[in-house]
Amino acid sequence: MLYLMGMGLRGARSLTLEEVDILKRSDSIFLEIYTSVIGENIQHDIEKLTGKSVSPVNRNDMEYSDIVTRKAHDSIVSLLVSGDPLMATTHNVLRIKCMDLGIKVSVLENASILNTAVGYSGLSPYKVAPPVSIPRVSDKFFPLSVYKKIAANFREKRHTVLLLDTGDGNPMTLREAMDVLFRMEEESSENIISESTLIICAIRVGFPDERYIMGSMGAIRELNIRDSPAIMILPSDMDENEREFTERFCDRISQ
Amino acid sequence: MLYLMGMGLRGARSLTLEEVDILKRSDSIFLEIYTSVIGENIQHDIEKLTGKSVSPVNRNDMEYSDIVTRKAHDSIVSLLVSGDPLMATTHNVLRIKCMDLGIKVSVLENASILNTAVGYSGLSPYKVAPPVSIPRVSDKFFPLSVYKKIAANFREKRHTVLLLDTGDGNPMTLREAMDVLFRMEEESSENIISESTLIICAIRVGFPDERYIMGSMGAIRELNIRDSPAIMILPSDMDENEREFTERFCDRISQ
Repeated sequence: MLYLMGMGLRGARSLTLEEVDILKRSDSIFLEIYTSVIGENIQHDIEKLTGKSVSPVNRNDMEYSDIVTRKAHDSIVSLLVSGDPLMATTHNVLRIKCMDLGIKVSVLENASILNTAVGYSGLSPYKVAPPVSIPRVSDKFFPLSVYKKIAANFREKRHTVLLLDTGDGNPMTLREAMDVLFRMEEESSENIISESTLIICAIRVGFPDERYIMGSMGAIRELNIRDSPAIMILPSDMDENEREFTERFCDRISQ
Repeated sequence: MLYLMGMGLRGARSLTLEEVDILKRSDSIFLEIYTSVIGENIQHDIEKLTGKSVSPVNRNDMEYSDIVTRKAHDSIVSLLVSGDPLMATTHNVLRIKCMDLGIKVSVLENASILNTAVGYSGLSPYKVAPPVSIPRVSDKFFPLSVYKKIAANFREKRHTVLLLDTGDGNPMTLREAMDVLFRMEEESSENIISESTLIICAIRVGFPDERYIMGSMGAIRELNIRDSPAIMILPSDMDENEREFTERFCDRISQ
């Protein structure tokens, strides 16, 4: 039996009562550490809470070994994933793998950074396009599809949530992400992104130093914020409610 | 002080540890009962869990009276909301109202039906358009904008999540919702929706009788399922992963 569990955004504190009950009667607890940035103390906090040892698993363990499924074959296994467990395809692949092996899977949902950042910032969830990931680019890898999606969203008056490459322990900074967008603008010249484009950044959501800032890309880039995790939202046309909400809920960065 | 708390999808069991701690030291606990369908025993369960009385609040209490903010002025108040607390504009309006009155607000996020239904069904969250609400229509109120949004999503190869009118205690059934779409198709004739259109329905997510079904709109309409809450997803072009996942994770309804 495998429990695929979302941890939400606040570590052990955002586990649900049901999740804690299941963790306490699990034979093995794994903590997935490669699809998102995990707080340093989470492993320790969950061990303290449950009285059980928690084993971190990385991409190799998950995708190329059977460490999780082997245990789940004849015992109760919980796999903890930051945020919402089904955002990453890899976890649906694991569900299928378990089904093929006759292992029962139960999914426990939890809060996702996507809804949380959008709702908290004051933007309407009814106007947000599917999220777009900003990759680390190079001369050989420069996917303009990212830029094209943002451009299409602007045309349709939809906001774009931009996820930053988590880079296996070396997450992309806001400045790096903005520089990727500026380079794409240079290549494409559709004139959708400039130093004065308004952007909202949700920084370290769920951590004690969580903050939401809003301002021009130029001004926020200059702050050179290195905190992670962080996500960016490029608002398209905001309605009156959204303008009021974002002004009140986000800290204004001015040049 | 106001704590605006998401309850997630499973009643008291999906409260987080942090939420339970705060509820236990709250002076008043309110339970919002009008933006979504709430399980019958939730009020009782939370009273039992916290040892405190829980007061349901309806739309009138929230939007036209100061019942919540008056208490929050000089004591600790928690307002419980099903799912994710910031999906409904009304809760951001409440945040502003509190800020204007000098009341501190803390938001505690939780799982949203939107992410959960999409992820669980096997569709990619990276291909899902903003949700669209299906209203109860009449001769005088027949908003074709709903249909236009679906049509645009199909053109852009994005899936559409359809939220059903909760109708203040009389939630719309799947059949009613499909009939609204069929009527819109008749009026618009863009040939995007027919009896054979594939649809995914997430029924009573978070309840013990939760299920995900997939089939033609005609076949599912015939089942005349009356359970609520329910949401529908109209998949656009699915990729290979999504086809495999949905086939495995949803029950196939055939004609």
